[in-house]
Amino acid sequence: MDSVTKSLTSLSLDPTSVHHSSTNSLTAWRDALTANPEVPTSFELIKTLVYKPKTSKTATPVPVVVIAHESASVNSGAIGKKLNLKDLRLASEDLLKEFFSLDKDSLSPLAINEANFSKVVTVVDASIATTTAPLALHALTSSATVFLSSSDLLKYLRHLETEDTKLQELDLQNLEIPAPAATPSKAPSKEKEDAKIEGAVKIAIGVKKEVDFSTWYTNVLLKADMLDYYNVSGCYILKPWSYSIWEEIQRWFDGEIKELGVQNSYFPMFVSAKVLEREKDHIEGFSPEVAWVTKAGNSDLEEPIAIRPTSETAMYPYYAKWIKSHRDLPLKLNQWNSVVRWEFKNPQPFLRTREFLWQEGHTAHLTSDEADIEVRQILDLYRRIYEELLAVPVIPGIKSEKEKFAGGLYTTTVEGFIPTTGRGIQGATSHCLGQNFSRPEMFNIVVEDPTDPTNQRKTYVWQNSWGISTRAIGVMVMVHGDNQGLVLPPRVASIQVVVVPCGITVNTSSETRSRIESACEELAKTLKKGGIKVKADLRDDKTPGYKFNDWEQKGVPLRLEIGPNDLAKQQTLAVRRDNGIKSPIAIENITSAVSHLLDSIQSDMFKRAQESFHSRLKEVTKWEDVVPGLDSKNVVVIPWCEREACEDDIKERSAKASEPTDERAPSAGAKSLAIPFDQSRWTAIEPGKTKCPACGQDAKRWTMFGRSY
Amino acid sequence: MDSVTKSLTSLSLDPTSVHHSSTNSLTAWRDALTANPEVPTSFELIKTLVYKPKTSKTATPVPVVVIAHESASVNSGAIGKKLNLKDLRLASEDLLKEFFSLDKDSLSPLAINEANFSKVVTVVDASIATTTAPLALHALTSSATVFLSSSDLLKYLRHLETEDTKLQELDLQNLEIPAPAATPSKAPSKEKEDAKIEGAVKIAIGVKKEVDFSTWYTNVLLKADMLDYYNVSGCYILKPWSYSIWEEIQRWFDGEIKELGVQNSYFPMFVSAKVLEREKDHIEGFSPEVAWVTKAGNSDLEEPIAIRPTSETAMYPYYAKWIKSHRDLPLKLNQWNSVVRWEFKNPQPFLRTREFLWQEGHTAHLTSDEADIEVRQILDLYRRIYEELLAVPVIPGIKSEKEKFAGGLYTTTVEGFIPTTGRGIQGATSHCLGQNFSRPEMFNIVVEDPTDPTNQRKTYVWQNSWGISTRAIGVMVMVHGDNQGLVLPPRVASIQVVVVPCGITVNTSSETRSRIESACEELAKTLKKGGIKVKADLRDDKTPGYKFNDWEQKGVPLRLEIGPNDLAKQQTLAVRRDNGIKSPIAIENITSAVSHLLDSIQSDMFKRAQESFHSRLKEVTKWEDVVPGLDSKNVVVIPWCEREACEDDIKERSAKASEPTDERAPSAGAKSLAIPFDQSRWTAIEPGKTKCPACGQDAKRWTMFGRSY
Repeated sequence: MDSVTKSLTSLSLDPTSVHHSSTNSLTAWRDALTANPEVPTSFELIKTLVYKPKTSKTATPVPVVVIAHESASVNSGAIGKKLNLKDLRLASEDLLKEFFSLDKDSLSPLAINEANFSKVVTVVDASIATTTAPLALHALTSSATVFLSSSDLLKYLRHLETEDTKLQELDLQNLEIPAPAATPSKAPSKEKEDAKIEGAVKIAIGVKKEVDFSTWYTNVLLKADMLDYYNVSGCYILKPWSYSIWEEIQRWFDGEIKELGVQNSYFPMFVSAKVLEREKDHIEGFSPEVAWVTKAGNSDLEEPIAIRPTSETAMYPYYAKWIKSHRDLPLKLNQWNSVVRWEFKNPQPFLRTREFLWQEGHTAHLTSDEADIEVRQILDLYRRIYEELLAVPVIPGIKSEKEKFAGGLYTTTVEGFIPTTGRGIQGATSHCLGQNFSRPEMFNIVVEDPTDPTNQRKTYVWQNSWGISTRAIGVMVMVHGDNQGLVLPPRVASIQVVVVPCGITVNTSSETRSRIESACEELAKTLKKGGIKVKADLRDDKTPGYKFNDWEQKGVPLRLEIGPNDLAKQQTLAVRRDNGIKSPIAIENITSAVSHLLDSIQSDMFKRAQESFHSRLKEVTKWEDVVPGLDSKNVVVIPWCEREACEDDIKERSAKASEPTDERAPSAGAKSLAIPFDQSRWTAIEPGKTKCPACGQDAKRWTMFGRSY
Repeated sequence: MDSVTKSLTSLSLDPTSVHHSSTNSLTAWRDALTANPEVPTSFELIKTLVYKPKTSKTATPVPVVVIAHESASVNSGAIGKKLNLKDLRLASEDLLKEFFSLDKDSLSPLAINEANFSKVVTVVDASIATTTAPLALHALTSSATVFLSSSDLLKYLRHLETEDTKLQELDLQNLEIPAPAATPSKAPSKEKEDAKIEGAVKIAIGVKKEVDFSTWYTNVLLKADMLDYYNVSGCYILKPWSYSIWEEIQRWFDGEIKELGVQNSYFPMFVSAKVLEREKDHIEGFSPEVAWVTKAGNSDLEEPIAIRPTSETAMYPYYAKWIKSHRDLPLKLNQWNSVVRWEFKNPQPFLRTREFLWQEGHTAHLTSDEADIEVRQILDLYRRIYEELLAVPVIPGIKSEKEKFAGGLYTTTVEGFIPTTGRGIQGATSHCLGQNFSRPEMFNIVVEDPTDPTNQRKTYVWQNSWGISTRAIGVMVMVHGDNQGLVLPPRVASIQVVVVPCGITVNTSSETRSRIESACEELAKTLKKGGIKVKADLRDDKTPGYKFNDWEQKGVPLRLEIGPNDLAKQQTLAVRRDNGIKSPIAIENITSAVSHLLDSIQSDMFKRAQESFHSRLKEVTKWEDVVPGLDSKNVVVIPWCEREACEDDIKERSAKASEPTDERAPSAGAKSLAIPFDQSRWTAIEPGKTKCPACGQDAKRWTMFGRSY
């Protein structure tokens, strides 16, 4: 960093710079900057690509350094053609080390200096010169960024020019593109450029969901004002627009579980190491992600204390204390809390975060039957959260032995699906722990068996645990969002209807204007009385067009417009967010009409998503259809043998053919998502006859396999 | 510990033992054991006291070691008289070191061994021999405990006896007590014994509120099933019986703040060191109590990360980012979360815990007027939580400069009062932060001033923060609880009415029995329909008397009894928990009668508590009345000069006369509790004439001073 500062200040440039965690992709880099409150709200990432032209083996290569906007399509074939260089290929890490002493994640235009400028060809995209936003450049390390204006960057590069070596300013977007054969590797990058939507000023999200899903997702969350990045990596701020969805989920689910006799409580967030490590399989599943408190004030703690990744082992010593008789059963406690799992993989808002909000239910029962029944009751409530509240279809089923909860007996799940990436996603899980935690060598949660007339026999309790987290919100965004932004199902929208005054021009009389505005307010009042969550947007510094975009980005299910004509006809123009359909509605009986419309939106959203999911469930009985099925973004459903070794094998064999649909989706091999409870959708399995397509052994049940989050 | 084990095993004794945090009082020791799930549910703490008789200076003293139950009254005068030893005084630490190589907190009967038995007089209380519960003894360290049966303890001690030295078994409760002059120091201990209530089998709490308040409080919480101790010190489990009170507070307050335009959100629990330390005064107030995460899995973090003690500095960088125009104001966010303050003082359930639940509201306003108005709106909501929900009277006022929130402009408070200890307690606070956090060198939260026609002038936002925590539940318990246990105000009781079938004897026909039970169920159903939270207690293994005690301990506001006579008369006998008054109520129109009765209970509880508080507010204008006022368990209200130096002085001067009313109430000197908004209660202050009784300078406002929690 010092050398950078030095050479910049020698040019009287005084850039601002920030430090952040190290980043290994453009997305991670952008995230790190966005999370930093010191960073300007708008900026442009500058990428630096290095290519090596084909040269004879003995010649010293002259690398081509291309400096361009993050989003620019860099067609190496076209650049090669323009510069008369053959077969440009991305340079190896060794070559980067040799020329710049840097890895690719730390590269930056500032890596070009007086020592190496004459040894490379430096290409600058012409569009940089006309950029007004500050440019973000790596400060020769992936963990720091300097901001320069475009003129300062060009000033820096130009001062390196000599008689012999000049800067190449090329208009990368308008280079002549050579025949396709010459540039086979550039297709994904070209596709990324297509993601930028034409007329993006009017259209909010800026990139297409179908093309650059990861950026699209982040943009939707930010533009809908659901979330902000936070300066502790992997942690995010839930703003009211998303938190209110969580409140709706809480309200509904909390009411349902209380009907089942569950009571809320609160256990401390801290867990002693000794207690945490009590169950071996369980702790193996969680220990790599446990955050440890070792200090308070200036004192070191005698023993490190964990922050709960989940509360089984924290709670069950007390269950053992409290449960003394079968009359103390069932014990059904729940808590709404946050847990911490310090993931080292790429974090993703809602889907993989280091702290997240959830509820965790922990119950103890006298018999396995009771436990089994409850596992399914809770799972069905989870299904209803997804399907009835979030309008997201899920498939209930049981997890394979490999995928079940660490330390439990069996795990049931509601599995969702993101059609855009073709990946499965676990929605929520309800576990039967069996007697694994209650047995004597574990927490010893035991009562006398009331069915034993001698009162001698003891029975260890049957336990369940179950949870749903804020991840559900992310799934909803991914399933329903479109290229205009978020699309909210009415049942979880904190604003279901927005009323916008329209048709007011400079020629509108102030009397008409105020009549329109009053009508909007009146309409909102009427709807509010009818229990509809409504807002009249009377901002006087914004145009109707701005407001339309604003509320569309935020996903408000229904817009009602009132203009002079509507006023005359005593009507309002209703515009649905989910499908854009417009229809006038009479003001008379407006409440029931709007309620009805909101119900339709809710059910239409669910139906469309369900059709999409179901159309991607591919019944597959031959191995050679598995990978093509996955590659066409399907979940493949196979008659499976249910052996763990076979699952490992499927994952390995399917990983080879993976394609990068979303850089943050972690697993490219297919794993088992669930064994659906409803097997009737597929051809009946004939015991001993139907074979597992992966290994040829006897098939047991139809099982969903897919790439997943 | 090893030497203990050795000598015990040599006697074929095989005691169980546990480790815990070190303890410096009987209460702390009991807490540490209760929190440990491995400890038997019932046990008796054994205390070991060492006295030195008066001897000539040159003679080697022969200490008297007294081994007795925790609760036993040890009258050293009486023991001395019995043993013919003069002037027994508690031995110095030096003497303990000399004879036993132990400090007083580690002392135990096991410290007596073959080497020292002949050098001391060992007295064992005769009642130990008849104790059936396991005895808890320190294992020669205050951080470990062994459990022995009484016979094993006596076996151990007796094996030390020699021809010359015998164990002294004395009946400590029935020793002849010498004239009072001889035992001036033993009064408090005698009083502790009185705290044990006669007939404690029938009466739940075991000790009297008025005598041993600290033990009473803990017992109420445990017996009402509100809370359990947890194996991380200073952390407690909130069980459904207390958590449901918090849910009532949440439901009511959340609705009220949403009416004020406040929205809920969630910020991460982690705060980077850099951000936390941004405001100097603020961090000085919190840093000694901050818990730090330094490790995740097996990796050390690059930088330690704090767990929020409060969220000002975590949130405000984002306020600066989000607030770009005066149109973004006011910004009003709230979160329901937990915070961590790693107190090193004695923890106390609800009142001082290392993690606690609260809400924290953080708002930003354009003008100081708007901020001021909101501070008071919120404070009034806090007053209503205490007065209308919890039936606990509070006095709203402003804090002195010394007691205000670290880094804020001014702090308003609702101050409560615990009559039994005569101590004040802060109920909840609503702070105006002024522009202290928004100014440019701090978080720089700035907008253009909309009143400036040139659009040049900038204005820094005015901020408030406000919070109420689960402490409120502890205050409610302390104010309303009695010697039968908890007393719940109907508005926060999760069961407001319990219906108990009565008068069923062995002679009752099964038909009558089932008619009574049906009537109970029917009654509960009727009340439930009327919106009353009711439970019919039809447990067939419990007597009515057991049930009465059970629900009285848990504080259920109203009991309805139905026996054969009630059935005949179509009535039920209502018994109020708050005052024990019984009255029959006709089953006809029962819902409105019960609703009315619950309202009366609620308002009577509040009125009684208010009268009690107001009768303890002593208007004091002379210094010599201050300490006697405090010692009579009052809050003294003085016409105060409002100078910080004077406040320090008052604290110091009043501390000297302190008496130990509650071992866990931290401060014995009086501090300013609040300057009440309503000054009209006291004689009008004449400017320049009325003087501060502490320093003689001009008085400004009447100010409440008191010992406090």
